[in-house]
Amino acid sequence: MKMISGGVCAAKGFKASGVHCGIRKNPHKNDLALIVSDVPCSAAAVYTTNLVKGAPIILDKMHLADGIAQAVICNSGKANTCNANGLEIAKGMAELAAKHLGIKTEDVLVASTGVIGEPLDLAPIEKGMPSLVAKLSDEDCLEACLGIMTTDTKPKEVAVEFKLGGKTCRLGGIAKGSGMIHPNMATMLVFLTTDAAISPAMIQKALSGDVQKTFNMISVDGDTSTNDTVVLMANGLAGNKEITEEGKDFTTFMKALNTVTVDLCMRIAADGEGATKLLECIVSGADTELAAKTAAKSVITSSLVKTAMFGEDANWGRVLCAIGYSGADVDVNKVSLEFKSIAGSVKLCENGAGVPFSEELAAKVLHENEIDIIISVGDGPFSATAWGCDLTYEYVKINGEYRT
Amino acid sequence: MKMISGGVCAAKGFKASGVHCGIRKNPHKNDLALIVSDVPCSAAAVYTTNLVKGAPIILDKMHLADGIAQAVICNSGKANTCNANGLEIAKGMAELAAKHLGIKTEDVLVASTGVIGEPLDLAPIEKGMPSLVAKLSDEDCLEACLGIMTTDTKPKEVAVEFKLGGKTCRLGGIAKGSGMIHPNMATMLVFLTTDAAISPAMIQKALSGDVQKTFNMISVDGDTSTNDTVVLMANGLAGNKEITEEGKDFTTFMKALNTVTVDLCMRIAADGEGATKLLECIVSGADTELAAKTAAKSVITSSLVKTAMFGEDANWGRVLCAIGYSGADVDVNKVSLEFKSIAGSVKLCENGAGVPFSEELAAKVLHENEIDIIISVGDGPFSATAWGCDLTYEYVKINGEYRT
Repeated sequence: MKMISGGVCAAKGFKASGVHCGIRKNPHKNDLALIVSDVPCSAAAVYTTNLVKGAPIILDKMHLADGIAQAVICNSGKANTCNANGLEIAKGMAELAAKHLGIKTEDVLVASTGVIGEPLDLAPIEKGMPSLVAKLSDEDCLEACLGIMTTDTKPKEVAVEFKLGGKTCRLGGIAKGSGMIHPNMATMLVFLTTDAAISPAMIQKALSGDVQKTFNMISVDGDTSTNDTVVLMANGLAGNKEITEEGKDFTTFMKALNTVTVDLCMRIAADGEGATKLLECIVSGADTELAAKTAAKSVITSSLVKTAMFGEDANWGRVLCAIGYSGADVDVNKVSLEFKSIAGSVKLCENGAGVPFSEELAAKVLHENEIDIIISVGDGPFSATAWGCDLTYEYVKINGEYRT
Repeated sequence: MKMISGGVCAAKGFKASGVHCGIRKNPHKNDLALIVSDVPCSAAAVYTTNLVKGAPIILDKMHLADGIAQAVICNSGKANTCNANGLEIAKGMAELAAKHLGIKTEDVLVASTGVIGEPLDLAPIEKGMPSLVAKLSDEDCLEACLGIMTTDTKPKEVAVEFKLGGKTCRLGGIAKGSGMIHPNMATMLVFLTTDAAISPAMIQKALSGDVQKTFNMISVDGDTSTNDTVVLMANGLAGNKEITEEGKDFTTFMKALNTVTVDLCMRIAADGEGATKLLECIVSGADTELAAKTAAKSVITSSLVKTAMFGEDANWGRVLCAIGYSGADVDVNKVSLEFKSIAGSVKLCENGAGVPFSEELAAKVLHENEIDIIISVGDGPFSATAWGCDLTYEYVKINGEYRT
């Protein structure tokens, strides 16, 4: 497997584009994106578990009932959530895309991200459709990446190439997600494409399984968005024998998918609102996978751990505290803890009690912008990784002023 | 019932004091406090549910096994948590207090608050004991208040006077708690005293019941401390007939207790680390008490709601979002929302969808420093209140630099 460029355009037969259509006031910021396959795809999606759901999610569940999709249209700036006419607007977006692409409305998925509760108007989207379609590219998805961004500071794309039964396949994705990031069973907006052939049942199984270890393990601020959506579309144009059951090909496919999703997770966490540091928390030695995941996610979600990391302060007691209240079934008297970065590593705690450490070395380790928080909770066989970021002045600034 | 001054010294036969003994470097900051009753008391306590527990909590559970206590000694600066010799040190504190007060070691409760994992030394405490005892006052508990503070900016004390069977009783308390505040079944440090006569069984029942609606309903940063403790001591010197069962007297006592604890909750939330605003979230119309409490606590815990309040931005979609992911069993299509302060009130959402509102009025309402977030989730009979504060630059600053 190798990393390649192209994002959602890397796989055969996929095109993408993005434009500014006028939902946002700033004319230099794209606010509409389109991804389309030359042929209908097996498709799967996972969505937010928030009871307050964006209208596009309700539409997508209907459109994906048959496991088939061909395009995704997505706007940023307004979330189309808590709007009385939300479903009608989402349907209007699908119809506009279908009409301009010459495909079925039911094969168009819709996503929205931005301010909750502000009415979304179809007029700018209708006006933007011709240029959105005209700009479709099978090489470069940067404009689409830009079109789905909100407070993100960097576009996020990645792709891999791998073999299935001798055929070269590709799988790539784009993502947005910077605040209101604490996915639960689903995630922010992530669009994944592949030219591998895989049945609707198996593609949903692959995606649902993968997100448990990837997008569900990141947190920027503990808030689960109303619009979280991950879509994976497979058009089969790579020519491999369709994956219809578990086995070697499915395992290879899962590995390719996981490579792409872990990469996007790290990009989302590193670009968390106001973040200056990417935090990776690895918990090992747990007796159950649930305990490992619960502890890891609790640590990277703790405001006190996050501010200590921003302050480059080896205040390790806060990590122990976050494990202790996480609800994870662990023996706190067996916990050991280490902070690690490219500058080195420093051990802070063993068997639940502090050990003497060099403050100088700790300061050097924490001064880097990618910090590993390495925790062992015992001798059990399970481990888990979670990704987060520090909590900074800039996070407060961005979110004190977001709507205005 | 009337509010009176005196805090933990308001009730007959209780004295308190505080000194700087040298645990903290700053000689102007008290770091040791003592509360003592002239006679042994019925006593109850509730503690943190964090698996990582301060050593004093382990000791207190042993000392309170008989439901009797006579004094509390508390230090700030170091939490005596995750220390290999923690229990030995906590026991040493109890022995020192017992020796200098001439009471039983088993009747002394111990509490500590401060940095987790830094070793706590008995030497400064031993040195400070004579002046701590010499300064005991039955009128003023300000020095004790100051002795238990960490990042608190204000001492927190309150007391009430009420009648039980014609006898005048008093109940008062002091509290500390500014960060790592997200109590779960227990809370930060709160010491309550009363001269009412009440049996050990009924005092524990009163306290355990009350915290569910008071201290368990506040959050500053979502982090549940390792040292949370609430102690209530009743010495019976008011001369009322001892409360030994439910009934009119117990109801009166519960009301007095709740008046004091709600007041302390609001003081703790208003003085949350870096806070500029006190948030009170009232959820009504729920089908169960659990749903009302879960929704209310989720709203005041949300980083995005908290930053919007700091920015005085009527970004109400974030409140809906926080209800939606809270896990509370509510119909989001029945939710209505209003922001209210002394400047007025503004309705933002009805039946789960936004309603037009005056941005000018909203800005005026949110400019105040006490904001009510008033939510109705339907026609059910249950309601709940939670208290929190905004998330500010200052919170990040305090916690990026706390240990150093």
